[in-house]
Amino acid sequence: MLKLDFHPAGRHFLQIPGPSPVPDRILRAMSYPTIDHRGPEFGALGLSVLDGIKKIFKTTQPVVIYPASGTGAWEAALTNTLSPGDAVLMYETGHFATLWKKMAESLGLKPEFLGLPGVEGWRRGVQADMIEARLRADTGHAIKAVCVVHNETSTGVTSDIAAVRRAIDAAGHPALFMVDTISGLACADYRHDEWGVDVTVSGSQKGLMLPPGISFNAISQKALEASRGALLPRAFWSWAEIVEMNKDGYWPYTPNTNLLYGLSEALEMILGEGLDNVFARHRRLAAACRAAVTAWGLEIQCVDPAVYSPVLTGVIMPDGVDADAVRKLIYERFDLSLGTGLGKVRGRMFRIGHLGDCNDLALMAALAGCEMGLRLAGVTLRESGVGAAMDYLAQHESAPRLKAVA
Amino acid sequence: MLKLDFHPAGRHFLQIPGPSPVPDRILRAMSYPTIDHRGPEFGALGLSVLDGIKKIFKTTQPVVIYPASGTGAWEAALTNTLSPGDAVLMYETGHFATLWKKMAESLGLKPEFLGLPGVEGWRRGVQADMIEARLRADTGHAIKAVCVVHNETSTGVTSDIAAVRRAIDAAGHPALFMVDTISGLACADYRHDEWGVDVTVSGSQKGLMLPPGISFNAISQKALEASRGALLPRAFWSWAEIVEMNKDGYWPYTPNTNLLYGLSEALEMILGEGLDNVFARHRRLAAACRAAVTAWGLEIQCVDPAVYSPVLTGVIMPDGVDADAVRKLIYERFDLSLGTGLGKVRGRMFRIGHLGDCNDLALMAALAGCEMGLRLAGVTLRESGVGAAMDYLAQHESAPRLKAVA
Amino acid sequence: MLKLDFHPAGRHFLQIPGPSPVPDRILRAMSYPTIDHRGPEFGALGLSVLDGIKKIFKTTQPVVIYPASGTGAWEAALTNTLSPGDAVLMYETGHFATLWKKMAESLGLKPEFLGLPGVEGWRRGVQADMIEARLRADTGHAIKAVCVVHNETSTGVTSDIAAVRRAIDAAGHPALFMVDTISGLACADYRHDEWGVDVTVSGSQKGLMLPPGISFNAISQKALEASRGALLPRAFWSWAEIVEMNKDGYWPYTPNTNLLYGLSEALEMILGEGLDNVFARHRRLAAACRAAVTAWGLEIQCVDPAVYSPVLTGVIMPDGVDADAVRKLIYERFDLSLGTGLGKVRGRMFRIGHLGDCNDLALMAALAGCEMGLRLAGVTLRESGVGAAMDYLAQHESAPRLKAVA
Amino acid sequence: MLKLDFHPAGRHFLQIPGPSPVPDRILRAMSYPTIDHRGPEFGALGLSVLDGIKKIFKTTQPVVIYPASGTGAWEAALTNTLSPGDAVLMYETGHFATLWKKMAESLGLKPEFLGLPGVEGWRRGVQADMIEARLRADTGHAIKAVCVVHNETSTGVTSDIAAVRRAIDAAGHPALFMVDTISGLACADYRHDEWGVDVTVSGSQKGLMLPPGISFNAISQKALEASRGALLPRAFWSWAEIVEMNKDGYWPYTPNTNLLYGLSEALEMILGEGLDNVFARHRRLAAACRAAVTAWGLEIQCVDPAVYSPVLTGVIMPDGVDADAVRKLIYERFDLSLGTGLGKVRGRMFRIGHLGDCNDLALMAALAGCEMGLRLAGVTLRESGVGAAMDYLAQHESAPRLKAVA
Repeated sequence: MLKLDFHPAGRHFLQIPGPSPVPDRILRAMSYPTIDHRGPEFGALGLSVLDGIKKIFKTTQPVVIYPASGTGAWEAALTNTLSPGDAVLMYETGHFATLWKKMAESLGLKPEFLGLPGVEGWRRGVQADMIEARLRADTGHAIKAVCVVHNETSTGVTSDIAAVRRAIDAAGHPALFMVDTISGLACADYRHDEWGVDVTVSGSQKGLMLPPGISFNAISQKALEASRGALLPRAFWSWAEIVEMNKDGYWPYTPNTNLLYGLSEALEMILGEGLDNVFARHRRLAAACRAAVTAWGLEIQCVDPAVYSPVLTGVIMPDGVDADAVRKLIYERFDLSLGTGLGKVRGRMFRIGHLGDCNDLALMAALAGCEMGLRLAGVTLRESGVGAAMDYLAQHESAPRLKAVA
Repeated sequence: MLKLDFHPAGRHFLQIPGPSPVPDRILRAMSYPTIDHRGPEFGALGLSVLDGIKKIFKTTQPVVIYPASGTGAWEAALTNTLSPGDAVLMYETGHFATLWKKMAESLGLKPEFLGLPGVEGWRRGVQADMIEARLRADTGHAIKAVCVVHNETSTGVTSDIAAVRRAIDAAGHPALFMVDTISGLACADYRHDEWGVDVTVSGSQKGLMLPPGISFNAISQKALEASRGALLPRAFWSWAEIVEMNKDGYWPYTPNTNLLYGLSEALEMILGEGLDNVFARHRRLAAACRAAVTAWGLEIQCVDPAVYSPVLTGVIMPDGVDADAVRKLIYERFDLSLGTGLGKVRGRMFRIGHLGDCNDLALMAALAGCEMGLRLAGVTLRESGVGAAMDYLAQHESAPRLKAVA
Repeated sequence: MLKLDFHPAGRHFLQIPGPSPVPDRILRAMSYPTIDHRGPEFGALGLSVLDGIKKIFKTTQPVVIYPASGTGAWEAALTNTLSPGDAVLMYETGHFATLWKKMAESLGLKPEFLGLPGVEGWRRGVQADMIEARLRADTGHAIKAVCVVHNETSTGVTSDIAAVRRAIDAAGHPALFMVDTISGLACADYRHDEWGVDVTVSGSQKGLMLPPGISFNAISQKALEASRGALLPRAFWSWAEIVEMNKDGYWPYTPNTNLLYGLSEALEMILGEGLDNVFARHRRLAAACRAAVTAWGLEIQCVDPAVYSPVLTGVIMPDGVDADAVRKLIYERFDLSLGTGLGKVRGRMFRIGHLGDCNDLALMAALAGCEMGLRLAGVTLRESGVGAAMDYLAQHESAPRLKAVA
Repeated sequence: MLKLDFHPAGRHFLQIPGPSPVPDRILRAMSYPTIDHRGPEFGALGLSVLDGIKKIFKTTQPVVIYPASGTGAWEAALTNTLSPGDAVLMYETGHFATLWKKMAESLGLKPEFLGLPGVEGWRRGVQADMIEARLRADTGHAIKAVCVVHNETSTGVTSDIAAVRRAIDAAGHPALFMVDTISGLACADYRHDEWGVDVTVSGSQKGLMLPPGISFNAISQKALEASRGALLPRAFWSWAEIVEMNKDGYWPYTPNTNLLYGLSEALEMILGEGLDNVFARHRRLAAACRAAVTAWGLEIQCVDPAVYSPVLTGVIMPDGVDADAVRKLIYERFDLSLGTGLGKVRGRMFRIGHLGDCNDLALMAALAGCEMGLRLAGVTLRESGVGAAMDYLAQHESAPRLKAVA
């Protein structure tokens, strides 16, 4: 028999770049009793989370919440705005950008995939100048949308979205601008309105600290207008009826009530801490993590310091070392889960997540598990990364912690 | 500020026909820590729930679990098997059959809607002979699928699915057979394989006693073959990659881990009680509920005793009584939620759910709340329905309860 | 193997007069992580609950919280204030008064037990005139304390404590006045200061809606002074060091942290609803319960309407009916727990609890279970008690319910 | 307003030597619904935990479970077996031995306190030869009991209880032998029967991983016989009625139901892992912790390696460093709670707990917090303790972890 609630003594350390550990506060909120999704209390809940989530996206425009995981929200962005055969300009930052592009093909769109050659594109952010050049060349405006990933979860690179916006504007191109910030939201600064994004796609299981199961489309007026003429068939994902019913806090079909409880709690936690404090906390932990990797003498997947991710750090193994074998050893010996290498970098690197409900000592635990595991796996380390991270954290004070008593 | 965890003394009685009350056991299981969805423990979890759910559908064929609510599983059934413009024969049993038909239209299909005239179809089950006649007339086999609802949640009618299968066979028609048993599964007997259903659609928030958020497609070999040639665009809902990765207990995208914990617990509860005991329990509570409605002198929405639903009972108000005003009074005075009338019967009836984690005294509480509320609303009742239900329950012993100690 | 988390479908109805059902809000609060009981957050928690609990006792004097169940708080009241061989005047209201008296004997005190003859004293409240007469006769003031039970849990009688105070004053007697309101607190009005009580004993598992495990002594200045000269040995129960350390919110030994979380939540719930609303709610449900018993044609244990308990109702069986056999049948058939008859009334009566986190429909469920069970047990009932209770509840509107949204 | 459920991002690290962190499994078990403590399911629960706890004490004799915290169980041991004025030989291992001795005085006993001079006794275990000599001198057998602490929580010294038994036997003295293993049980090997202990005192909040609130007396036949003639007054703590009612799994007064749920889960966890594995795990983590302290160049409170505690490690500060100021800095900067110095060593040392639900990376997190904090506090460290602990843990493989799937 499967025993889910088994017990190796002590807590498991889940340091993958999402799903991130769900705080007890949120688990408790998710255990509130399910209520009538047509009753008055639900409407109040709906209005409250729909209002709060806008603050996270930094938008005053509609944010649609789907009772579905993040991949669905990718599909929603495309099917609501585009028509069969439409050309879409996408940029290859890594594995998830590649999956989104494959989805566009499956849906009958014609994606064009920009990027640097080889794995180079997987080590740098979006090259806005390449996008600008391509759009300038599209004098007939055949390209209907530009799609990029904000925080590429497979590599640990956080691209400059404002720069892409400037590139589109510089080219004077009318394409819709769509951004996936599934793993970036509530970890790194994100500004849907200021950056002129038309559809922002996100999910629950990263910076929002929820289990997977709900996902988001933040939608500009331009995107809403595009949806009226878009011909890709859609029903579950269709914005129109959701946006309409959301005005009263309801949904056209059964919403994911218990995850909305969790979202309400997450919003209270994040907005209570303050978005800027949340971002600073992520940056500080990421810097400590990179200090460790550098001290070990290992390479970081992201080679451009301007776009280091505050969410996760990709660690490249020396030649001849199977990253997944190292991960397995660490998992079995030290009860620590790390992210696997995906796609082009499978077996070559692993990923340390330091997002969401993380703090100094949880990161130190993860780094200690990595350091012991790397040594046991026979990887030669230059010096102690744990020591380097401790130096960093001790020297850089964190933002003031929230207190139990006001 | 919104206070979700507020306190009117005592428990709320949630007697809508779904989402049904989530048992504490399942809420606790859902609070297990989120794990790496690519790690070894997840694979074991995945294989276990994929195996268990087949027993509930009574199938040995694949069951796809979506991290999305039930409406999505409707879309999945259609987009995986059909092509733009395909003719589909659907049957109007009530509001949800109507919504599924509208979805088919939105997706670019050509649904034909059979049914009895007026609201008559909303008070009886699927008329299999009408389906047989229509299929016999379709000598060119233009109709690609027959879609019916097993338990119509808007009315409280549980149609005879085996009879529809016999009708299709009698007509010698090759159409796919698709059934929605979102609210019927794990409440009323359902036999995906024996009844020759090609796609069965279901959800989590009814007989499975989970919060909304996961949904199902049980798939026949014939449906899988159809999916290879089906031209409706699809990505998130696409069966192929899911079925392939499910062989090892994984999913192509992030699954809804915590709801899968809940599903595992639900399967243990339901299979531990025994499906036949679960069905008998639902039938007995439904009969007690109908005894109450009859004693009140009110009409039951379903007029054919052969297809009374074990899941819910629709109660028709006398002329001039606004059913929603009665529901509101009951909600405010007695902390009891009842289902609203939907679509054609809005304001004319309300629905009492007696599904999932329900027992004798929870039903008695609900009936007492209804009886007090109806009287306070000025509805003349013939005699005490509560008394009639007590007579029924006292005279009909339930199946043996599970015990704490084996 | 023992399976604690087993599943007879639906909720168990726990309608014993305590431990009462613990609301989910409190269970969730009790699952907050255990903290350092010497750290700053604990001090804030301690001060908060020590302040809140005073409002429940209606006192401005110290309330000591023991990490022990209620029986211990009885012992604390006696050992802190009395010396070996001291005479104590106690009053026999029922089983719990008898147990307290036995404890006094075990501790080397000399209790004198007043009361009406036979079981008569178990059907009425404390006769204050008997106490006054006895104290007047004690001209030498040999009696050091008067001990009475406020709400006698074994019978459903709530004595008039103010009247006992007046009796002591009228007799001009200096004895300490000690009151057990273990099951009365937060159900029936109680005024430690106004009524001049010297030690009030209470517990967590009744009106406070917590699991058993903490208990209370509210202490007058007179009692504190008495404790300085009292010679009964004591350590764990000793007030002095606790009262001293409580000033900063700490305890001399390890406190029951997680139950204090629960207490904090309970205080927020009760004070949020308002004590007067809480009392009115209890009175209303008790009246509905008695309407049912009366309609059944059965006798209520308490024969004096002036002291009917708002907490529980004792129901006397007709001659020849074994009350425990009826309880067993109801438990097994209807998943409802009722209180057994204790001591002198064992087998003669059972007790229906309607305290704490109870509401109209939970009471109706309990009464329906009783009515069905009594009939199945062959007890002849005059008419439907369920009907009578519905009449009462429908005709008497409750206090406004708390709302989710302010 | 007090906000208990506040959020500094990430988990707090509670590394005090008890209360130890309560695993989620136990918190979930504690949230099972409270049941009738006189009903059949409770009896099954009672028998189950009473049986399981004997395995932890390694006894076949009665173990009494009190609904009270550990200090109460000290009192129970004394009051059940002794009479006013009895001489008791106690041994000063540290602060808790001192508190127990003070309690004996409060209860009217005549404790004699053996020990090495100054703080020397606080750095070594019980000197069995001193006990033997003292008992040999007591030719009149005036000493009625010998009381020692197994694991002294204030110092981190685990005394050799078998040696004390041998000393008593060698002296041919009939005194009762009482042992406090409040913090040792389920962390270090303990053998109530084999070591001939008459009363073993323990609590819930250490190796058993429960919140505080229940405590234990394991009782020999000799102690039970002594209790029949013992004259100290007692009621709540009295063994006789509890032992009698425990035969059927019940208690004479309201037991702490929800903590017994937790105990049942704890027993399943501990016995499932295997006591020997549990002890080995504690020893290994303690050794890693000491490796860190030694590398730092700091002194360990315990100077005798034969009696190093597997539960906690006391770390002595260099002269002039206030240990509590260091603790405060660590708490505020790194969200880590450490144990304060108590009694004679207040301000001179702090304590790192590594007991109960602890694992390699939780210990590493704690050591990293200490190392950063010590440096920030200006304490000169010889080398990295974190590095030394990593070396130890990497070189010493742990016992096999339990697996989710059998």
